[in-house]
Amino acid sequence: MAVGEGALPPLLPVPGVRIGITEAHVKYAGRKDLVVFAIDPGAAIAGVFTRNAFCAAPVQICQRHLRVEERQRNQVTYLVINTGYANAGTGDPGFQNALSVCAAMAGQGGVGVANVFPFSTGVIGEHLPVDRIVAGLPSCLTDLDPDNWLKAAQGIMTTDTRPKGASRQFDVNGAPVTLTGIAKGAGMIKPDMATMLAFIATDASVDEALLQRCLAEAADVSFNQATVDGDTSTNDACMLIASGASGQVISDSEPAALAEFQRNLVELCVELAQSIVKDGEGATHFVTVRVNEARSREEARAVAYTVAHSPLVKTALFACDPNWGRILAAIGRSGIDNLDVNLVSVRLDDVVLCEHGGLSPHYRESACAAVMKQDAYVIDISLGRGAVSADVWTTDLSYDYVRINADYRS
Amino acid sequence: MAVGEGALPPLLPVPGVRIGITEAHVKYAGRKDLVVFAIDPGAAIAGVFTRNAFCAAPVQICQRHLRVEERQRNQVTYLVINTGYANAGTGDPGFQNALSVCAAMAGQGGVGVANVFPFSTGVIGEHLPVDRIVAGLPSCLTDLDPDNWLKAAQGIMTTDTRPKGASRQFDVNGAPVTLTGIAKGAGMIKPDMATMLAFIATDASVDEALLQRCLAEAADVSFNQATVDGDTSTNDACMLIASGASGQVISDSEPAALAEFQRNLVELCVELAQSIVKDGEGATHFVTVRVNEARSREEARAVAYTVAHSPLVKTALFACDPNWGRILAAIGRSGIDNLDVNLVSVRLDDVVLCEHGGLSPHYRESACAAVMKQDAYVIDISLGRGAVSADVWTTDLSYDYVRINADYRS
Repeated sequence: MAVGEGALPPLLPVPGVRIGITEAHVKYAGRKDLVVFAIDPGAAIAGVFTRNAFCAAPVQICQRHLRVEERQRNQVTYLVINTGYANAGTGDPGFQNALSVCAAMAGQGGVGVANVFPFSTGVIGEHLPVDRIVAGLPSCLTDLDPDNWLKAAQGIMTTDTRPKGASRQFDVNGAPVTLTGIAKGAGMIKPDMATMLAFIATDASVDEALLQRCLAEAADVSFNQATVDGDTSTNDACMLIASGASGQVISDSEPAALAEFQRNLVELCVELAQSIVKDGEGATHFVTVRVNEARSREEARAVAYTVAHSPLVKTALFACDPNWGRILAAIGRSGIDNLDVNLVSVRLDDVVLCEHGGLSPHYRESACAAVMKQDAYVIDISLGRGAVSADVWTTDLSYDYVRINADYRS
Repeated sequence: MAVGEGALPPLLPVPGVRIGITEAHVKYAGRKDLVVFAIDPGAAIAGVFTRNAFCAAPVQICQRHLRVEERQRNQVTYLVINTGYANAGTGDPGFQNALSVCAAMAGQGGVGVANVFPFSTGVIGEHLPVDRIVAGLPSCLTDLDPDNWLKAAQGIMTTDTRPKGASRQFDVNGAPVTLTGIAKGAGMIKPDMATMLAFIATDASVDEALLQRCLAEAADVSFNQATVDGDTSTNDACMLIASGASGQVISDSEPAALAEFQRNLVELCVELAQSIVKDGEGATHFVTVRVNEARSREEARAVAYTVAHSPLVKTALFACDPNWGRILAAIGRSGIDNLDVNLVSVRLDDVVLCEHGGLSPHYRESACAAVMKQDAYVIDISLGRGAVSADVWTTDLSYDYVRINADYRS
């Protein structure tokens, strides 16, 4: 199950980036499960990763290889992504296995090992079948094509019910720049999501430090409002590649162009993040928890996440039941100092639920239930303490969530 | 569904405490839904309550009436408990409604309003039917009997599938002292539990300040390890009454007697707290998450709660699936500074799951699955950082949890 139509928009090729996909039988037969990105020399690469203490072996290697002194910028860079196994919780053998994949790719591509970035998603705690992955690499290299984004979006799916991707084209100084990204990750929510992976590329030319800053800022208002966060799964990663093939330079010295680039990057990341939430395991509703009138962003997010993570709230969302007492109870335990409950109000879209910390005299259950029957709506909470707002995107908790996650390994 | 047999032990009457129960039709017909405790003059009373900012009207009133200067110790004290409505999130009208119930009880009992403690549990955000509750009080008073503990345990049930109670008798200076308690609360877990209520009484004589200290310490190692915690539901309350009718004095000046009293109180609270967890909504397993080798109790509890609250862990427990990667991932995101994952090990009862932060060479899936098929077992986590341990009791996340909580109001 998934919320909304989810028809994938056309995914524009990004000059300087080619992609190959194959069936490597990593875990199952009959599915594309190995994807290789080949990025032309000279590209800048940025990445944001999980902060889970048990970060997976491939994440550790990506973080190491991102250091410029280890990578050869004048060589091709490869990203190798497998599904089936996450290679997390696998100790030193897992680390060696990931390095073996990198070494094999480096050998076949004629580059240094530090020019290969490995990504794995799937079951935690079981060892990577290095031989099958290595055996699949030649097919991926044969398949390399700039127009393979949709196939790649399909190739990185695990419990996802549909591929996720988005594209943007915009002008910088009168010349077009392309931005295309794909993502996977059908876990329910931070902090218990399945692995979130995203791969985004542009043909703009961006200094690597600036690119990293752009990605971190964009991730904070997109993936970090949905599923990816500092302390999430063991394998979360989001990569941003700037091939520079368009010749259009994005830099701090041209603020207007930089702002336009960043605006498009944020929009693309929001689109990918929301598509992940909408495809959440067992999701039947896409719900934005919006907290207004907070004193700080941290405070607004703390309240929004407490509401969004409450199993009692989430089961009520599944039932389309305006059981706002559960929402109030979640707000009340979100750890906000000196919260004056008499100033708290809650709406569903524009329909008033409670005011002054109690049942609103304007409350009508039928009107609220009607809002909750929609595919998507907003739980709008005002704290009456300040002027800061924050959104968090989430889903309901359904029978299917339990079925999917109780059956995942069987 | 509920874990284990749960045959209720005999509940011994506590001299000085009488209980009356009736069908007041508070919300539904045909069920005992109103309970009154009448406590003889001279008793000491202690209470611990939710710290939710949206604490319900009755909780606010209990906290106010607990102040000794407002209560008349030479009068009878009444506890009035209704199910059906929680009287939480009801604003000032809710507060006035709770006071109206207290005033009516005070009038019928011939005591001051501050000698009445109100408790409500049920749906949040809907107004208390004061008239029906007040109309039920005379039947409760007619029914008053020291031997009504079992009926009272039944009378405070909401989504509970069985009554919860425990009794202890022990000697103090060669004379017997009785301790009896009942509880309700079938919510899944902190921090999203349904209301937890517990009423415990002893015929020992205990100074009120000491009684409050005994209760706070006992709650911390019982209810606070399971479901009741600082930041839980809007209505959580646990009351401890010392009638003094036995004439046996418990005081700081007799440390051995005090220790014996406290040991029995803790055991009784643990029994009640565990019975609540075992009757958790949809629970099919009772799981103790034990964290060892932590640097502090806070750290041990943070890890234990993160594991116990993870929906992915909980669905794996439901499936009897030793998906220990989910356990490691939860440990990894529990916010422990500088966790050395290579020192982390996990066992299910005595069966090794992982060592050195990875899959144990001794791991056998069949042995682990066998442990997980038991009604009750321990997830035993060692952090390798210190010498402090903590337990948290929890349950799995089943289809029935979703069904119960999605259907609760319909």
